[in-house]
Amino acid sequence: MDEFITMDHGSGGVKTSELIDELLRPAFSNPALDALGDGALLCVPEGGRLAFSTDSFVVQPLFFPGGDIGKLAVCGTVNDLAMCGAQPLWLSLSAILEEGLPMDTLRRVVDSIAAAAKDAGVQIVTGDTKVVERGHGDGIYLNTSGVGVVRCPGLTPDAIRAGDQVLVTGPVGDHGAAVMLARSELGVEADFVSDCMPLHRLARAAWEAGGVRCLRDATRGGVATTLNEFTEGRSFGIQLKESRIPVRPQVRAVCDLLGLDPLYCANEGRMLAVVAPEQAQAVLSALRGTSGGEGAALIGEVTERFPGRVTLENAYGANRILSKLTGAQLPRIC
Amino acid sequence: MDEFITMDHGSGGVKTSELIDELLRPAFSNPALDALGDGALLCVPEGGRLAFSTDSFVVQPLFFPGGDIGKLAVCGTVNDLAMCGAQPLWLSLSAILEEGLPMDTLRRVVDSIAAAAKDAGVQIVTGDTKVVERGHGDGIYLNTSGVGVVRCPGLTPDAIRAGDQVLVTGPVGDHGAAVMLARSELGVEADFVSDCMPLHRLARAAWEAGGVRCLRDATRGGVATTLNEFTEGRSFGIQLKESRIPVRPQVRAVCDLLGLDPLYCANEGRMLAVVAPEQAQAVLSALRGTSGGEGAALIGEVTERFPGRVTLENAYGANRILSKLTGAQLPRIC
Repeated sequence: MDEFITMDHGSGGVKTSELIDELLRPAFSNPALDALGDGALLCVPEGGRLAFSTDSFVVQPLFFPGGDIGKLAVCGTVNDLAMCGAQPLWLSLSAILEEGLPMDTLRRVVDSIAAAAKDAGVQIVTGDTKVVERGHGDGIYLNTSGVGVVRCPGLTPDAIRAGDQVLVTGPVGDHGAAVMLARSELGVEADFVSDCMPLHRLARAAWEAGGVRCLRDATRGGVATTLNEFTEGRSFGIQLKESRIPVRPQVRAVCDLLGLDPLYCANEGRMLAVVAPEQAQAVLSALRGTSGGEGAALIGEVTERFPGRVTLENAYGANRILSKLTGAQLPRIC
Repeated sequence: MDEFITMDHGSGGVKTSELIDELLRPAFSNPALDALGDGALLCVPEGGRLAFSTDSFVVQPLFFPGGDIGKLAVCGTVNDLAMCGAQPLWLSLSAILEEGLPMDTLRRVVDSIAAAAKDAGVQIVTGDTKVVERGHGDGIYLNTSGVGVVRCPGLTPDAIRAGDQVLVTGPVGDHGAAVMLARSELGVEADFVSDCMPLHRLARAAWEAGGVRCLRDATRGGVATTLNEFTEGRSFGIQLKESRIPVRPQVRAVCDLLGLDPLYCANEGRMLAVVAPEQAQAVLSALRGTSGGEGAALIGEVTERFPGRVTLENAYGANRILSKLTGAQLPRIC
């Protein structure tokens, strides 16, 4: 194979076929993909409801501590499906490559995608590759879209009631802080990595424990912005206890250094769950007993005070409002 | 709304919400999208097989005679689903916007997507928006993925037999020639436009007429490359008659001027159908009686001569081999 991506690889002709046959198809091989039609044919195990989600990924740098754009692209869409109460089954993969990209870089990303898909129990069943001229991209942009079968219907912010408990599956801010540190020119090496991971096991553990009203992964905009999406325009608020929100001391230190707030940092493997009060402890135990959820914590509750707002109570009992992220605190984070 | 796209619009915070609430949601509104979860929930009308397809779009210029990147993004994925024998139902839409993009440009593209989706009978049910810094994109890159319900199973090159007839639904090369002319600095104005259109009606007309072995839209690489995908590694070849392949004289003239071959030019609204001999006339009539298929023609047949090859017979009875496109004759065409 060529050493670098050229415009020819996007032509739809011989070089495109070479890229597919020598790199992409071997990495992702499965019957639906191998048929190589204009799309994939999927057999839905039973009738019923499907979940469908899409995400594009423009993260810089392409490789960061704890992950890379490929792993991120798989986890991002797998997680969106899991948050809908679905078992993720099939992904599409589309790449916009920049002319001059080293083939080795692409190969590393492709291998990472294959490994992440295996871990998440999904198949890459259809794909597309485009090439843009040097200076019109940034190495690799990816899109994944995904289809899953709904196992736990009815997860929606509309189901949330006053008294419900708010849980998070682990320390917050790791992904955002790791990527921003990797991008900074401080020369500081982190002793923590991105939280990038598939959340399908944790989502299933939560809904099997029962009482789950709503799930959401706290990606762009972080925990603060995601929780605001629950409360916005609604008759309830969410009150968080600052002391209960797990943040690694190293992440807090890096955030201080970079002028970031961990509550607004993107996470790529942290789930927020709103759960009925009587089942909150059971869900917490289920999460802690599932790989990746060992650090789960109960961080707040739904309240009729401050309707429409997310508030943070500090150690002295004072409340401040956590509004949605304004401005672009963390560009190109996912 | 702001006059230009800024990095803030990709932050996942307030500005992202504004873009969604003021531009995207009103344009595409439907119950699945309006729920605004991490993904869309779809009710599959009945059990059975689904088709799933994805495509990214990087065409330059964003607006060209007969279409734009938005219409193209809808038609591209709708057509891929239709070629699988499916009725297209749901699309995802993901945009990578370049900082500084005029909001008016985005609005025009969004309106075009909405109109094309309506024409194609599909709903935009889920989406994503990312923003990259100036100089790392090219205005707008789009990805659409689509899900449809299979109505005509078993369409595959494996079903093709010697003696089958090859049909095309209209003149070839219009899209490629129109875009390349729009991009050239010749100052020539075309008196033809891109063929960009949804093919779901023509696909259905073909499979309802019966005898269809395989359908494919002749996009990147054109008619010649697409037909090679049918014959490659198989025990049959395809013989085309040059005199029967419809090419507009104006398209031929522009291709001559630009050094292109209409048979290798991308089409975005032309379908190739391989049909059993006894039903070929019925399919031809059905296509001609369907909007967008008035110019359908029978252009060749499947033969045991030249297995694995596509050959073109000229007016004097001489044959030449049409191989797959090599090199990037037409970069950034879709």
